[in-house]
Parts: sequence; structure tokens; C-alpha cells
Amino acid sequence: MPERDERAEFIESVGDAIASWHLSRATGRVYGFLLLRTEPETLDTIGAELNLSSGGVSTAVRELVSWGLARTIPQPGSRRLRVEAVGGFEQLLAASHERTRTFIRTLHSGAALTDGARARERLRAVVGLFEGYVDAGDQMLRRHHVEDGDSRR
Amino acid sequence: MPERDERAEFIESVGDAIASWHLSRATGRVYGFLLLRTEPETLDTIGAELNLSSGGVSTAVRELVSWGLARTIPQPGSRRLRVEAVGGFEQLLAASHERTRTFIRTLHSGAALTDGARARERLRAVVGLFEGYVDAGDQMLRRHHVEDGDSRR
Repeated sequence: MPERDERAEFIESVGDAIASWHLSRATGRVYGFLLLRTEPETLDTIGAELNLSSGGVSTAVRELVSWGLARTIPQPGSRRLRVEAVGGFEQLLAASHERTRTFIRTLHSGAALTDGARARERLRAVVGLFEGYVDAGDQMLRRHHVEDGDSRR
Repeated sequence: MPERDERAEFIESVGDAIASWHLSRATGRVYGFLLLRTEPETLDTIGAELNLSSGGVSTAVRELVSWGLARTIPQPGSRRLRVEAVGGFEQLLAASHERTRTFIRTLHSGAALTDGARARERLRAVVGLFEGYVDAGDQMLRRHHVEDGDSRR
């Protein structure tokens, strides 16, 4: 079944990508799986499809929900939850910006520790690059947020 | 010596930040050390200050040079090199963009694997967010590059 192979490959790639944003690979694989599904899935199905323990699935789902990448849907008359992917990376990108802003503050604090004007100027240039970079990303996220809000009306 | 402590803290923070861009912490610490220095430093001084083996320093310097974050300066009449920091993160940021573009291609390829229109639309929204994000960053880097070029004239 070639499509099954392609699906597995897609799921692994999303796992790798999400791992580079400081979440676990298992969390990324669950997200990749859910992204392909229109209907919410039970934790049991997710575990069976991805070969994960029920504890592993719970942890991954909790992580996705806390980052706004999935939501749980209660089943009427059952204690079993179903889960679906949410297409919003805004929180993860905002967290990545926050890390960069921490780095910018560190670089700022270094100005007092440099041993001369040339080192100070070089540091200022690095700070300028990162500030411009984070500002451009923030503007884009804000714009996206506004458009998103508009489309929901 | 409080300043020495602050310097050590700065160096560790730069090490942590650089590690999140897929380089080694040692490489980041060497960069943090060099950022504070106006004059180029020998590999021996770097190793002694940061408590790194000469092999460790060589590897870190090679990594920095290959990413455009440092340059080596030959000493006339000596085989010893000196190294100084270069204030350009453009290559690292561009590599980070390239990873994001790979992720976007993966997401695109997933459209054919979704099981319904709603999943396909959600995937398209995620792709749109990342494309906007990477484009904003690219524009900023290009603008920075132009300004940089201008200021050198």
C-alpha cells in the first residue's frame, strides 16, 4: 500500500519538524496523524496507528492541547475522549520569539562587558539584526491573527 | 570579581541560544567569548579561558567560520592563527528558514493524504501561516543585507 507508506513518511516528517520546536517527536507524530483526519480520533486509535503506549498518547495529546494544536471532544454517554488537530502554530511561534527576545536581552547585557568600541559596535549590529527579525515575525503573526478573526465573523 | 561572573554568565547564555540553532554549546560559548573581545584571540587563550581542549576549540572555531560567525587571521611569521567574531547571523537564520521551507513542502505533500475536505482546508491554513512567516523573515534578511551593503560603501 504505497499510500500507507507516504502517510507514515508524512507523520515522521511532522514529528521531526515539531521536535525542532522543543516538543517531543511523539507529540509531533500524533499531530501529523491528526492533521490528515477530518473526524476526531480516540486515544486508542491513535496509539494503535502510531504504535504508542496509552501513557505516551495521553502525554502527547496533553502537550498538543496546551500549545493550541489540538482540542479534545467529549463523547456523549462515554468517558472516552476524541481528539482533533487545530491548525494554529501561533503559540509555538510566539514561544520561539520569546526565546529569541531572551537572547536579545542577553546580548544587550553584554555591551557593558566588551573590552572596546569595536566589540561594542559589533554586538549592537547583532542585536539590531535579531530585533528586526523578531519584529518582522511578530508583525506577521499579528496580521495573521487579525485576518483569522475577520474570517470567523 | 563580579564582572568575571557576569562575563561567564553571558558566555553560557550565548552557548544556550546558539545550541537552539543546531550548533554545539561549545561553539556558542566560543562565540560568546569572542563577541566581547575587540582583538583577535589565539586558540590557546580561548581554550584556557573556556576550559576547552585544543581539539574542542578547533572544532568550535571551524564551525563558527563555516557559518560566517568568525574569521581566522594569520599571524605574520607564526603558524598560530588568531580568531575574531563576525557579527552576522544571516547564514544561521537562512538555514533555519530552509528547515521551515522543508516542513512547508512536507505539509503540502500531505494534502493528497488527507481523508476529507475539512482536513485539507486545515492543512492549507497551516501552510499559509508558515509561508507568511518565512516570507516575512526572508524580506527582513534581504532588507538587512541591502542596508549592510550600503553602509560599507
